Amino acid sequence: MDLNADLGEGFGRWELTDDAALLRIVTSANVACGFHAGDPATLRRVCALAAESGVRIGAQVSYRDLAGFGRREIDVPPAELAAEVAYQIGALRVFAEAVGQRVEYVKPHGALYHRAGRDPVQAEAVIEGAQLAGVGTVLTQRGSALDRAAARAGLRVVGESFADRAYLGDGHLVARGTPGALLDPESAVAQAIGLASEGMVTAIDGARTPVAAESICVHGDGPEAVAVAAAIRAALDERGIDVEAFS
Amino acid sequence: MDLNADLGEGFGRWELTDDAALLRIVTSANVACGFHAGDPATLRRVCALAAESGVRIGAQVSYRDLAGFGRREIDVPPAELAAEVAYQIGALRVFAEAVGQRVEYVKPHGALYHRAGRDPVQAEAVIEGAQLAGVGTVLTQRGSALDRAAARAGLRVVGESFADRAYLGDGHLVARGTPGALLDPESAVAQAIGLASEGMVTAIDGARTPVAAESICVHGDGPEAVAVAAAIRAALDERGIDVEAFS
Amino acid sequence: MDLNADLGEGFGRWELTDDAALLRIVTSANVACGFHAGDPATLRRVCALAAESGVRIGAQVSYRDLAGFGRREIDVPPAELAAEVAYQIGALRVFAEAVGQRVEYVKPHGALYHRAGRDPVQAEAVIEGAQLAGVGTVLTQRGSALDRAAARAGLRVVGESFADRAYLGDGHLVARGTPGALLDPESAVAQAIGLASEGMVTAIDGARTPVAAESICVHGDGPEAVAVAAAIRAALDERGIDVEAFS
Amino acid sequence: MDLNADLGEGFGRWELTDDAALLRIVTSANVACGFHAGDPATLRRVCALAAESGVRIGAQVSYRDLAGFGRREIDVPPAELAAEVAYQIGALRVFAEAVGQRVEYVKPHGALYHRAGRDPVQAEAVIEGAQLAGVGTVLTQRGSALDRAAARAGLRVVGESFADRAYLGDGHLVARGTPGALLDPESAVAQAIGLASEGMVTAIDGARTPVAAESICVHGDGPEAVAVAAAIRAALDERGIDVEAFS
Repeated sequence: MDLNADLGEGFGRWELTDDAALLRIVTSANVACGFHAGDPATLRRVCALAAESGVRIGAQVSYRDLAGFGRREIDVPPAELAAEVAYQIGALRVFAEAVGQRVEYVKPHGALYHRAGRDPVQAEAVIEGAQLAGVGTVLTQRGSALDRAAARAGLRVVGESFADRAYLGDGHLVARGTPGALLDPESAVAQAIGLASEGMVTAIDGARTPVAAESICVHGDGPEAVAVAAAIRAALDERGIDVEAFS
Repeated sequence: MDLNADLGEGFGRWELTDDAALLRIVTSANVACGFHAGDPATLRRVCALAAESGVRIGAQVSYRDLAGFGRREIDVPPAELAAEVAYQIGALRVFAEAVGQRVEYVKPHGALYHRAGRDPVQAEAVIEGAQLAGVGTVLTQRGSALDRAAARAGLRVVGESFADRAYLGDGHLVARGTPGALLDPESAVAQAIGLASEGMVTAIDGARTPVAAESICVHGDGPEAVAVAAAIRAALDERGIDVEAFS
Repeated sequence: MDLNADLGEGFGRWELTDDAALLRIVTSANVACGFHAGDPATLRRVCALAAESGVRIGAQVSYRDLAGFGRREIDVPPAELAAEVAYQIGALRVFAEAVGQRVEYVKPHGALYHRAGRDPVQAEAVIEGAQLAGVGTVLTQRGSALDRAAARAGLRVVGESFADRAYLGDGHLVARGTPGALLDPESAVAQAIGLASEGMVTAIDGARTPVAAESICVHGDGPEAVAVAAAIRAALDERGIDVEAFS
Repeated sequence: MDLNADLGEGFGRWELTDDAALLRIVTSANVACGFHAGDPATLRRVCALAAESGVRIGAQVSYRDLAGFGRREIDVPPAELAAEVAYQIGALRVFAEAVGQRVEYVKPHGALYHRAGRDPVQAEAVIEGAQLAGVGTVLTQRGSALDRAAARAGLRVVGESFADRAYLGDGHLVARGTPGALLDPESAVAQAIGLASEGMVTAIDGARTPVAAESICVHGDGPEAVAVAAAIRAALDERGIDVEAFS
């Protein structure tokens, strides 16, 4: 089982994620590429830390939206979106290659993750951008529009699940803002164990529900983020579940 | 003799350079990388046009300054500047490689060109950025701080001269804003011929002055830019001077 | 009848609208406020020109989107959008007041115009922003969500029509991108005459259709913009139609 | 004695200053205006909090430099700089007036503070911007170029001193980066008492040195900022020194 987290989400004077601590926990790093967060010096630093830690580097691509942290959907025409995705991957790749690594995968951030998860046009634009930049793997939820677009284009998809988000009985996430959408730390640890050991979650309605997942996302921002991520990692390690980057 | 021009200097709705026309004239394209101009879709389009035209692609790197078009000096700390340069080159490289080309060289834009021309700290930061991004050639004026920093680092320097800028008797440019600093189109053509055929210019004080140059810069913005560039190219062609990218 | 146009839509090195020429034609200037276009020096210059020309100043507020020229819808939460609208109006007001004028009205730009025209939430946010900034008049289409939100809040609405956009038989605009959506210059002049003299247009299906309009929008960008706007103004003047700012 | 601090220095997702806590301590709030920090919703929130707390509102104007947090000098031409300063003040004024307050003064931020402190051209541009926006008071160090430019223009200057910065024997600040430039919290409290009660500091060479100051700056960022500011406020209160906004 792979653990992934969003890293490098500061910008200039502003810090957000404790990158060094998270890199001791996760096996895949979704590195912000400058469009919602991530100045070039941070990209460089995070790539160097990831290489030291043996953590896989992926591009966390976003709408161009520093003011909104990439959390607002934007109707970017697909040709522009594809170019923006490729631009971000290319920028990150320089820093990955400078420390002997590659950008192994792409994962959209925030509103682009959600939009590309349901909108085939933006999903195909993300895939086109990944292909332009020579990246062959996409980290996203199974069953999403992005999953289908990646499959059509012949890209590999790594199925993603979430430790701290509640699921519906049909395997979809409970929408943010809905009561119960976010799990408390203890429940997040339990859900991660279920995902990693059985590929199952207990949905918000109590039903045992299969969730295809090769990678579990743990959150990197927020005051408790590192502690929760560390607890999840420790729980998996204790149960003898191999935590390693997807192959 | 190589001819270079700054291309792709629009941004979103705003256009500036007639990229298609200039690519029929020059042999090296300094493509804006998004920090002073150049949105990702424009980078992609210009790289594709350059590949079709057989024109060499270089990265025109800049301070992060859309509002000032990269024309204001900024005291960027060197570690940040090096990362910013590498970031820009990486972004451009994706689009060059997507059409089978490489980013062959780096040329700083505007205020960064001037600052790195005299400030060893920023010059070394530019060189560090180029090295991070795996670019081994720098297009700049001989005798500048950037020329020296490149030499110390073992990078190749392509000496640059200007068709439409007046020179002092010591081989330096007359400062912008000084009367006579900008040549009229006819004089620019004559100066380009002198540079290409003899490596000499007539300085503002009338002295014949050697200027080491493997590439002549023609300007891409302004209403007369394409006409002047075309006249220079035609004049060199007529005289049997080989106009081709530096090797 | 009032004529309005979008002005000041350059940014730094990039120019777009011929502000001086348009200010000799229109009676209301929708001045870009910096979020989709318009650097502070341009705001200042356009306000000074407008004051000299006796043209009314309005705030052309936008999503924060230089890269997309404000033409992409963004899901900005309403509290943020209201604050962004107020911020832009305040910035413009300084330059209007410095030349003895006021910001008399607000008109959303581009995608915000369209979104606020149909989405009550963003419409109310725009109105809240206008009220925060002390602006009591909104320039928009009658029957839109923004029209209704303004009415609910007690703001005055100036009904807007378009010279060069085709109308449907129900008084709505034909969507951009639909064949026939944009009128040629001659038809635009004819439509402006019909709007100003009778409050009627000939819809795309041939039906004579009433369009409530106290102001006609003429476009300021594009190579023919000034010529078309001047032709409309001349046609109205010739027919003895008073062209003056709404009172 | 007035206490001032920089507030509202977050941007979108990123937070920096504990505005609510600082507003219980200081008497003047230098509110970031969006160019180095400060999104519109934050400006609105901080102005509302300041009004509730009875704290005076000033405009903390900056170079346009989110990536550098306004800490890098930029060679902005003076006409542009004046317009940028006015733009920022105008934007802030909307939110101050919406809660019944005014923008009472202007204080440049970061690199602009330092540049305008020694460069008469940028100093005059700042003053021109303040005048354009109708602000008649400048918060800055006595003896600086900005102090002189303000005096020439007939603006009021409020002399500023720093609690946690070491002084030279001539009354200037020890440059950042020099050993001893930053005082520890205990020394900062002691220096604030000396400034408020006697207008004197103990310079880094041990000399007792007069420092003209009507306002003491306490820093708002950093993990200890609120605690140090609170300690300074408590120490002044204990000694019966009136802490109130400059009149």
